[in-house]
Amino acid sequence: MSDWVWSCEGYDPHAEGLRESLCVVGNGYMATRGAVPESQAGSVHYPGTYVAGVYNRLEDVIEGARITNESLVNLPNWLGLTFRIDGGAWFSLDDVEVLEHRHNLDLRRSVMHRRTRFRDGEGRTTTLTQRRFVSMASAHACALESTLCAEDWAGSLEIRTSLDGTVENAGVERYRQLACDHLDAVGSAELDPETILLEVETNQSRIRVAMAARTSVTRNGSPFRPRRELRERSRWIAHDLALDVEAGDVVTIEKVVTVFTGRDRAISEPAAEATVWIGRLPSFETLLGRHVKAWANLWKRFHFDMTDREETLRTVRLHLAHLLAAVSRNTVDLDVGVPPRGLHGEAYRGHIFWDELFVFPVLNLRIPLVTRSLLRYRYRRLDEARQAARAAGYSGAMYPWQSASDGREESQQLHLNPVSGRWLPDPSSRQHHIGLAIAYNVWQYYEATGDREFLTHYGAEMLAEIARFWSSIASYDHSLDRFVIKGVIGPDEFHSGYPGAEDDGIDNNAYTNIMAVWVLSRAQEALGLLPDQSRAELLDRLEIGSGERDRWDDISRKMVVPFHDGIISQFEGYEQLEALDWERYRERYGNIQRLDRILEGEGDSVTRYQASKQADVLMLFYLLSADELGELLERLGYRLEPDLIPRTIDYYLARTSHGSTLSAVVHAWVLARAHRHRAMDLFVQALDSDVADIQGGTTAEGIHLGAMVGSVDLLLRCFSGAETRGGRLMLNPLWPEELGTFEFAIRYREHLLHLQISGVEVSVRSGAGSHPPIEIACRETVAELWPGSSVEFRL
Amino acid sequence: MSDWVWSCEGYDPHAEGLRESLCVVGNGYMATRGAVPESQAGSVHYPGTYVAGVYNRLEDVIEGARITNESLVNLPNWLGLTFRIDGGAWFSLDDVEVLEHRHNLDLRRSVMHRRTRFRDGEGRTTTLTQRRFVSMASAHACALESTLCAEDWAGSLEIRTSLDGTVENAGVERYRQLACDHLDAVGSAELDPETILLEVETNQSRIRVAMAARTSVTRNGSPFRPRRELRERSRWIAHDLALDVEAGDVVTIEKVVTVFTGRDRAISEPAAEATVWIGRLPSFETLLGRHVKAWANLWKRFHFDMTDREETLRTVRLHLAHLLAAVSRNTVDLDVGVPPRGLHGEAYRGHIFWDELFVFPVLNLRIPLVTRSLLRYRYRRLDEARQAARAAGYSGAMYPWQSASDGREESQQLHLNPVSGRWLPDPSSRQHHIGLAIAYNVWQYYEATGDREFLTHYGAEMLAEIARFWSSIASYDHSLDRFVIKGVIGPDEFHSGYPGAEDDGIDNNAYTNIMAVWVLSRAQEALGLLPDQSRAELLDRLEIGSGERDRWDDISRKMVVPFHDGIISQFEGYEQLEALDWERYRERYGNIQRLDRILEGEGDSVTRYQASKQADVLMLFYLLSADELGELLERLGYRLEPDLIPRTIDYYLARTSHGSTLSAVVHAWVLARAHRHRAMDLFVQALDSDVADIQGGTTAEGIHLGAMVGSVDLLLRCFSGAETRGGRLMLNPLWPEELGTFEFAIRYREHLLHLQISGVEVSVRSGAGSHPPIEIACRETVAELWPGSSVEFRL
Repeated sequence: MSDWVWSCEGYDPHAEGLRESLCVVGNGYMATRGAVPESQAGSVHYPGTYVAGVYNRLEDVIEGARITNESLVNLPNWLGLTFRIDGGAWFSLDDVEVLEHRHNLDLRRSVMHRRTRFRDGEGRTTTLTQRRFVSMASAHACALESTLCAEDWAGSLEIRTSLDGTVENAGVERYRQLACDHLDAVGSAELDPETILLEVETNQSRIRVAMAARTSVTRNGSPFRPRRELRERSRWIAHDLALDVEAGDVVTIEKVVTVFTGRDRAISEPAAEATVWIGRLPSFETLLGRHVKAWANLWKRFHFDMTDREETLRTVRLHLAHLLAAVSRNTVDLDVGVPPRGLHGEAYRGHIFWDELFVFPVLNLRIPLVTRSLLRYRYRRLDEARQAARAAGYSGAMYPWQSASDGREESQQLHLNPVSGRWLPDPSSRQHHIGLAIAYNVWQYYEATGDREFLTHYGAEMLAEIARFWSSIASYDHSLDRFVIKGVIGPDEFHSGYPGAEDDGIDNNAYTNIMAVWVLSRAQEALGLLPDQSRAELLDRLEIGSGERDRWDDISRKMVVPFHDGIISQFEGYEQLEALDWERYRERYGNIQRLDRILEGEGDSVTRYQASKQADVLMLFYLLSADELGELLERLGYRLEPDLIPRTIDYYLARTSHGSTLSAVVHAWVLARAHRHRAMDLFVQALDSDVADIQGGTTAEGIHLGAMVGSVDLLLRCFSGAETRGGRLMLNPLWPEELGTFEFAIRYREHLLHLQISGVEVSVRSGAGSHPPIEIACRETVAELWPGSSVEFRL
Repeated sequence: MSDWVWSCEGYDPHAEGLRESLCVVGNGYMATRGAVPESQAGSVHYPGTYVAGVYNRLEDVIEGARITNESLVNLPNWLGLTFRIDGGAWFSLDDVEVLEHRHNLDLRRSVMHRRTRFRDGEGRTTTLTQRRFVSMASAHACALESTLCAEDWAGSLEIRTSLDGTVENAGVERYRQLACDHLDAVGSAELDPETILLEVETNQSRIRVAMAARTSVTRNGSPFRPRRELRERSRWIAHDLALDVEAGDVVTIEKVVTVFTGRDRAISEPAAEATVWIGRLPSFETLLGRHVKAWANLWKRFHFDMTDREETLRTVRLHLAHLLAAVSRNTVDLDVGVPPRGLHGEAYRGHIFWDELFVFPVLNLRIPLVTRSLLRYRYRRLDEARQAARAAGYSGAMYPWQSASDGREESQQLHLNPVSGRWLPDPSSRQHHIGLAIAYNVWQYYEATGDREFLTHYGAEMLAEIARFWSSIASYDHSLDRFVIKGVIGPDEFHSGYPGAEDDGIDNNAYTNIMAVWVLSRAQEALGLLPDQSRAELLDRLEIGSGERDRWDDISRKMVVPFHDGIISQFEGYEQLEALDWERYRERYGNIQRLDRILEGEGDSVTRYQASKQADVLMLFYLLSADELGELLERLGYRLEPDLIPRTIDYYLARTSHGSTLSAVVHAWVLARAHRHRAMDLFVQALDSDVADIQGGTTAEGIHLGAMVGSVDLLLRCFSGAETRGGRLMLNPLWPEELGTFEFAIRYREHLLHLQISGVEVSVRSGAGSHPPIEIACRETVAELWPGSSVEFRL
């Protein structure tokens, strides 16, 4: 394997997970499902593709044990292509003797290759080779080329090329009892002898989806017109192509497909568009050429290289390819967010959580146009967040922990503990810290781009409304002469409340309180950056008076932060919880990531123990540099003792069950800062979480986009020590000399920068252009960098 | 009337036009129809509102005399509110004696007021007062408050509040034989005793539209729960409210309404959204407060003041209000263009032409966020324009003269001459100069904002593809050693070809050739402005090699421009056409704006004569300053003789029938440059074109948005001599001293500027902020202006 190809050999009908299926091919607009093994599809049919950004949200009622709250909808399956010989059964891998089977994902070109050589029950040997891609160059195009070689037989070959709207969302086993079937039939048609059209409609959100496919055949390299028959059923249409084959004949079937939905821009009606555009799609090869070129340009933006780290590079590229399959230029006009499993996986049913916190840094520093669009997704749901705050008795905007199409809170109200079989109340909507993540993302985007226009029209308003929410939920405690925030849940979901009041939230979660202070300060800073008139308009529109801003300022100086034993307490009273006998539980249960379920199954409660599911206090060290955290604590009148960070890290690492892939990213990050020489090893571990399916099975439900991208980002930002703050790009590299040279590309405030880091030197080169210079700081040195010039720092 | 209120007194059931109907109230997202007189509605029902940006395009087939190509669709009518007394007939203005009738459009607040006092057949006297608005603060909200005073009677009062989806597009008489009915029923429901819901779907584009209304009643100031009955028919739902009234009672009916379509962002399904949001809408007064505040802030951006010119100011404000009713922050997320009659008028059925050329300058210098969105509308249709070029045998992008939802050419292929009754071929799709207008708009946006990000991702690509089209349509003429462009139609639609070949286009239209050179130069300039890597990516993606760019350069130095008798010829051979006996035709026909139809009716052809429908060569003087035009001609090796501009103006003014409202704007502009002391008079004439319905009836079919906004813009830009070119704001004021002081606000490259111009001085003040300084040039002086400072120039 080169550092650009993911490959697997051999056919295992029971294999699951990434290495087997390797289906991560998309273009943002649509993406093929990642993780369902072929055996499940039973033939050369591949799993369906999804409507990007179509969240089909039924009412989140609870009907007995059936939660009918769905949000990702299958696109019709465009990959349907199968065959049979002499009128026998349609091909299935399970019915033949597999002689060779190879699967390659060419990351550089984002093309999936497979080659299967097999012998069927009649002793006939056939080779099937396929190439497919979802075009990065044209949002609406995808293509599949299949080549069949009749090695040692002659006979009649029938090929079935179909579009299938009977797809279900059945990728996650435990959801199969929920509503899985989201498409209604609209119609189908044969557009011409080579072309079929299928139109369906989502059955709740009423979005039409139209797909058209054109299939052409060559035999031994020459165009060939096979006999054709049209087949139609409800939500399904196919062409059956028949031809006679001699031994040694090579038959190539080229299928190009286009898809449109009613949410697309610049269309009349989806079926009308699909009908027009299928006729305009060029050949497989021409489409492929454009697709490869688009990826070549993307890889320049996402350039990354290291001496002698082929495996790491390949994983990094896989992660980036997965990211770009979900969000790219092609999604800029769609109203989509970043679901935890990308657009491929059905786990969490496409709901939006806080994963963008781990994804945006990589985008901000490469294609911020995409981040801008994703932040606009949040902005469009600001009104809904305002309503949520008002309904809960607060001001400003209370963003929902889980959301879907219209941005309202979608967190379940009950959840099932599979260990105990009990349905339990689910208070996870108390995770108001999602708003902190959104505010952080707005600010990071601004720092990376200097986009004052965005800040003026959208960003400052979001920051102000989120700040306002925190101001309204904070209350003044006279006895402390400080502000407190009560009844929330922090990132660590185990502590949903105190023992005996498990669902009422906890008080003064350090992460929440400190980040609330950060947001209150950034909101003020953002308002200060606006032109006078724009600021006045915004404050007038939001009815923010000077009294309110004084209160923000006051809170940002007087928020309480709990400490104990020289470390930051996760929340008020954490130190009074009981110690858990970790060894005993590890011995007894093996995997204790979901310790909460284990304890509940025992009639106990995880809220009684000093035990965390995931990084909570440690998130602070992930989001804020030591300098910035120190400034915030100082502003609050606390002292950042020199050993506070390492002590706090050690303390919580010993008390965490690591029940979240995102947590692994955070832990790798903070550990790398504490143990810099081990950084590479830690990162490689974090990088591998999906590749190795460390959670044992969750990868098959969809790849963890946040963890994937987060791991790439920390590799990048930790080694370069890159920080965008105060209008400067700061570099503080930690690259061990023995690892050779590390190089990568970033975009900072219009500059396309090429960075090279070795143990002794950092060099930064900026491409030519007419944009203004930037400031780069490396440790104590600050340099001004103009387009077309470069700067070196000795370490 | 103050300078903020349009008012009319008295009721004339036959009146048409703007002064009578005064219905121009919208918020971008939806807009009420402008010009249908109330008599047509027959009761207090108002005309319907439109789905902004929903272009319902049927196939542009011609079925006999029935062209079924529609593109604007009515929203259900939300204003339905009528009443009856003691079970009599429902109220109609035609059935009562109107004692007083007053209509006011409060421009400052964008609120429509009416007050009607009448006596019915039973001798009862009643006063009806209404206030209504479509909220600028909340895109989806509108509200109507109706107050009935039973002056001298007692009885049972029934009020009907309805949502009506049976609306038709019947606003233009000659279109009434075309398909007018575009909505299918989906469903209706009573959501609660005060609230009704209606859902319909467009019958071609399949866009759902849902509307909900909540109606509450007070009697003599106290909340009152009337008896209620639900009424439902297909596409129609109403609540009938009944109460008993004493003489002197005052009954107020408050109706708040919300609307969503399937093209909206951040929604689940339109009816689901309408159901949720109608419950959240506050009272009429609260909604009004926010609406007024939003307008107050808009008027600051569009600030405009002149000493003692109340009437002019009022007209300017009316025009601006009409613009902002069509496009605003509320349309930024919609996929909409700028139709000639805004979103109100049905003339041209909502198709998009080149009107944005006259509209964008005003937006660029005030709310460029909106222009950016409108340019993105064009960008999304770039692929369609590429297809059009390819289909016609050209390269690059050939934008369509008329377009609708999906951006393909929608120009009719036949048109009816009502004078002769003949159906004639319509070659208007040869007006490829639309692409020049789009390129011009891209560049002007960039000059006004300095938005390199837009240029990088969208603008440069549009410029390059449009340039490429002109390069491919231009051919090299060896005998001339110059490039020529043949077979096009320029802005003057009379000259669709040469005599005897009326539909084949003309050669070397000076406007087209010179602007093509301008575009080829700007495309190179834009590419030069991109960062190296971005430029390389774009050129790679578009497959533009250096040979192609060399050809652009070559053409931009060697394009032919026809001249005769010391003036620029409209096209090759214009001087050989016959002179028209204008006096004879004016005497015979009176209005000869549509001279083409008159001549065709006589068996003659307008193509034989030196007669133009509208500005063509003169458009050059409108779009380019004399300096810029001189530079272009010099680059081409021509000399701009000092008297060429005035001679050319005089020549064409004598040969133009003024058959376009846009042309009036252009002529006022060029005349003002030639006859500066008459400038104000000319502008006031241009300003009044809709207010006075100078075309005699076309205003009733929809107000001419381009002409309205264009007239404001030329008032502004001509008096200030403002030009944004080469990264500078250039001012060259022509303000006659006797007119006092002229002041206005503009936004230039993040600076919010306040300008004051008198006969002797210009002062420019920039609001405070953190953005970089700008350069301002006034005649020979150049000054650098920082945020928070000001500069004065003595004239």
